[in-house]
Amino acid sequence: MKSLLVLAHGSRRGQSNDEVRQFVQAVREKSNGRYGTVVCAFLELTKPLISEGIDQCVKDGTDEIIILPYFLAAGRHVVEDIPAEVARKRAQYPGVTMQVREHIGVADALVDLVMAMADNTL
Amino acid sequence: MKSLLVLAHGSRRGQSNDEVRQFVQAVREKSNGRYGTVVCAFLELTKPLISEGIDQCVKDGTDEIIILPYFLAAGRHVVEDIPAEVARKRAQYPGVTMQVREHIGVADALVDLVMAMADNTL
Repeated sequence: MKSLLVLAHGSRRGQSNDEVRQFVQAVREKSNGRYGTVVCAFLELTKPLISEGIDQCVKDGTDEIIILPYFLAAGRHVVEDIPAEVARKRAQYPGVTMQVREHIGVADALVDLVMAMADNTL
Repeated sequence: MKSLLVLAHGSRRGQSNDEVRQFVQAVREKSNGRYGTVVCAFLELTKPLISEGIDQCVKDGTDEIIILPYFLAAGRHVVEDIPAEVARKRAQYPGVTMQVREHIGVADALVDLVMAMADNTL
């Protein structure tokens, strides 16, 4: 079974974290069964942390986790913290494949999206 | 003259900030003259800061600035820091209209984008 783990930064503001959870709920609905579970986790400031998110996927019976960094730029969280944490979890769960995708900031589509939001034409 | 100011968080990692600058360069090219200037600014950790970005737009002769928070969730930066800074700059430049758009995290298109990145079909 394949899982999708969407990884966000986490905020001191509860509503911001809820916004991410609702976003991931929309991704879950859209995924239309392609993933057995779609969960979110955070780097800091709120739960579940990335380690706990991966534990949850494993507990749900996954053997492959697609990890998507929901970050606009590759700061230290993306370049250092996420790979380090995933390396630890790979060692813990050698039978589970974990693939880390690029952060969403690399997507060309964001240029059009920003343009449309600036122009109020979305 | 109308300006577009794309506001990002800022990182301790120089390459991350350069990534945002390159992104805004792509927005500039895409904007095709709809904005007299397209600039980026940061909330913290690197320059130009938001205040300096607005100063630059005004120096370039703008009378309307569209401010787009390049943030995925409405944490305290989006909800408190950006409005507070914009309020200060409105007082400083009463002749310049400043409109703050919603942060990009509200865009429904992000659900499809995340799905495509997870599926590696982008």
